[in-house]
Amino acid sequence: MAERFEIVEKALGKMLEEKKYAALRDILLVMNPSDIAALFSDLEEQRLPLLFRLLPKELAAESFVEMEPDAQEVLIRSFSDNELKEIVDELYVDDAADLVEEMPANVVKRILKQADPEMRRSINQILRYPEYSAGSIMTTEYVSLRPKMTVEEAILRIRRQGVDKETIYTCYVTAPDRKLLGLVSVKDLLLATDDETLIEDIMLTNLIYVNTQTDQEEVAKMLSKYNFLALPVVDGEERMVGIVTFDDAMDVIEEETTEDIELMGGMLPSEKTYLKSTAFDLFKNRIPWLMLLMVSSTFTGLIITSFEGALAAQVALTAFIPMLMGTGGNSGSQSSVTVIRALSLDELRFADIWRVIWKELRTSVLCGVALALVCFVKIWLIDRMLMGNEDITLMVNAVVCLALAVTVVIAKIVGGVLPLAAKALGADPAVMASPFITTIVDAVSLLVYFLFAKALLGV
Amino acid sequence: MAERFEIVEKALGKMLEEKKYAALRDILLVMNPSDIAALFSDLEEQRLPLLFRLLPKELAAESFVEMEPDAQEVLIRSFSDNELKEIVDELYVDDAADLVEEMPANVVKRILKQADPEMRRSINQILRYPEYSAGSIMTTEYVSLRPKMTVEEAILRIRRQGVDKETIYTCYVTAPDRKLLGLVSVKDLLLATDDETLIEDIMLTNLIYVNTQTDQEEVAKMLSKYNFLALPVVDGEERMVGIVTFDDAMDVIEEETTEDIELMGGMLPSEKTYLKSTAFDLFKNRIPWLMLLMVSSTFTGLIITSFEGALAAQVALTAFIPMLMGTGGNSGSQSSVTVIRALSLDELRFADIWRVIWKELRTSVLCGVALALVCFVKIWLIDRMLMGNEDITLMVNAVVCLALAVTVVIAKIVGGVLPLAAKALGADPAVMASPFITTIVDAVSLLVYFLFAKALLGV
Repeated sequence: MAERFEIVEKALGKMLEEKKYAALRDILLVMNPSDIAALFSDLEEQRLPLLFRLLPKELAAESFVEMEPDAQEVLIRSFSDNELKEIVDELYVDDAADLVEEMPANVVKRILKQADPEMRRSINQILRYPEYSAGSIMTTEYVSLRPKMTVEEAILRIRRQGVDKETIYTCYVTAPDRKLLGLVSVKDLLLATDDETLIEDIMLTNLIYVNTQTDQEEVAKMLSKYNFLALPVVDGEERMVGIVTFDDAMDVIEEETTEDIELMGGMLPSEKTYLKSTAFDLFKNRIPWLMLLMVSSTFTGLIITSFEGALAAQVALTAFIPMLMGTGGNSGSQSSVTVIRALSLDELRFADIWRVIWKELRTSVLCGVALALVCFVKIWLIDRMLMGNEDITLMVNAVVCLALAVTVVIAKIVGGVLPLAAKALGADPAVMASPFITTIVDAVSLLVYFLFAKALLGV
Repeated sequence: MAERFEIVEKALGKMLEEKKYAALRDILLVMNPSDIAALFSDLEEQRLPLLFRLLPKELAAESFVEMEPDAQEVLIRSFSDNELKEIVDELYVDDAADLVEEMPANVVKRILKQADPEMRRSINQILRYPEYSAGSIMTTEYVSLRPKMTVEEAILRIRRQGVDKETIYTCYVTAPDRKLLGLVSVKDLLLATDDETLIEDIMLTNLIYVNTQTDQEEVAKMLSKYNFLALPVVDGEERMVGIVTFDDAMDVIEEETTEDIELMGGMLPSEKTYLKSTAFDLFKNRIPWLMLLMVSSTFTGLIITSFEGALAAQVALTAFIPMLMGTGGNSGSQSSVTVIRALSLDELRFADIWRVIWKELRTSVLCGVALALVCFVKIWLIDRMLMGNEDITLMVNAVVCLALAVTVVIAKIVGGVLPLAAKALGADPAVMASPFITTIVDAVSLLVYFLFAKALLGV
């Protein structure tokens, strides 16, 4: 796919240079809006308006929605008021609201001026909901039916109203006060054997819905879990105000996963893609955790300083510090990453903490013993016999391997428990991933190491 | 949500104990199949068949599909042949194929015996495709239309055939030899102004489809990118053989993300959820990378050993080893995690490697300089003045901070480049995450540290 796309990109660039506009238009006409948007995002800015004007109205609007905000801004600035109005009229309300959120104030003013009054009201309504809530990602355009309609009347209503609705396949049955009573799918309507059947007799009343304040991640998870095309959104009085569709849910899941992964990697989540981020953006997202962890490693320094005597007496001990800390850190991050992912898929709850501890305890004993045995043999064969390091006595080897096994056990239990604790305290468990765990485990592994050294080597 | 669910769970458990079956049935009737499945998966095995038999046929089948394989197996073993046939008849072909793949051989035999011949043929067809291919996750049940049908005839055909199809909302127009000619949505059919319009006049011919061999991750990304309800799957001769629906795509994305996260955490990907995995399962997935990284840290040990003299001459140097390695590791994993995520979202290609290097270079210089400055002040104020460690001279401090800055720059560039290199070599970039990067950066940071110490301190 990617390669094919690059070939198209090159061909179009060439045609644009040679001003073969008619041929260009023919190619664009058979392309999908998402692909047109991706193509346009790679273009030089001054070419964008020219190429965009080749598109017919509907395709133009559909492609516009899929574009990156900076390309959208370039285009809007090049539009006449009339051109802008044509695009805005074609937008679904939730897309228009997204656009208004992304654009600078003077562009927003122009957009709202061109929107018809009802659209303007809906946009403002959506923008009033808190960021990342169901209200802020919903669309207010859905098909609503009344319980006393017949199947035939319902289908007629869909045919009359459907053009402007984001999905027509799930229709919502509401009372005159907009209270949500039930839902009926177009499949049910089409497969109904009798056109005179009343909607209230075939509608599903076992409803699953969310509130305008529900977190968008929760909404996305519900859509994914129940395999729905759309989920109704109600206000505080249980009146229907909009729907969230599955495609928005897929975008939310992608965003939230990226955020989790960024947090796990010890960064602040970013709004921009990697290539769109400047070096300074990346710096701002990365430096806080680096700084915090760097400063907190003062503790590991202190531990080493306070055992300076032991290290001087047994110089061989220093060589194994990186291995101990590294293996401890990896063991801990394995557990924390696993638990974080299970939490974000709702496979784990805080109440499972004892099961997690018990599972990590057994796993870590298995890992610790296996690692210690291999480490013992490796040190003896490679470091002692092959490299001929006579400082490494049997006792030194035993200290290293015992410390390794104990560190792995502690690291895995800490790694498993911390994300659960974060969740219970209302923090994002993803923050408790490798960088954080590593810093704790570094200190723990050194302490364990020196305590064993003191006890067994008497240093 | 989760809390509400636990309350329902407790109430149902109690009613089951008190044998209030009629009331139980009433509650189950208003529940969603996904919730029933989740509930049943938590039940004791011997209660499962009893409770399952309370469900009406269709709800029973829908709930069955959503259950975990072990619960499904318990149920199938408790079914009579007749009961099994009733469930199998209600399944969609792709769900039936999944079931056959999960169950042990003797259960599979019983399932295939109860499936009607056409279903059996379809299941076998799907199972022949490679694992993780479009063919293996598609369903063969879709609505097909002919180009010369009128809108009215098409709607009639949907009403007649639709019951057994997983989605009716996108219909595929095929030639008699099953070549895919176009597609038409139910929305287009319903909104067509004239019932006599021919399908070929309104169908979309600008088709996006995949091959049976296409990787499931690619399929899921396309569905997500284009916001389609379903994607047609064709065979080597471009004949239509099935569709993949958006809900399957959401499951695939979830699976593939979990796999990426597991690889990034230094584990082999697992098929089971955390709570379903035994300690030995977890051990098997975690020990290979731990072992590999532990053994490869022999290098860091060798570096330290070969600079033993320098460490003995300047004992203060040892105390900063964990801070240097830790900060280097964190810097590198920030970059690698960012690049890995951008690669898996198709935001980056190998051709962008120079842009990545340039961006990481500037970011890392910013981070390196900031960290070095803060570190210098911190060491002077805390380690030297507050702790009174007289071994830390200005020169030692300079060595530590210079090594820190250089390590951060190298770590970030290595972290950014390695995932791209893995991708170019056809390996999974996610393998190049923190644990791997950390091991490389550990060695690099020590080398840089000791080289600066040699040059500036003359040790």
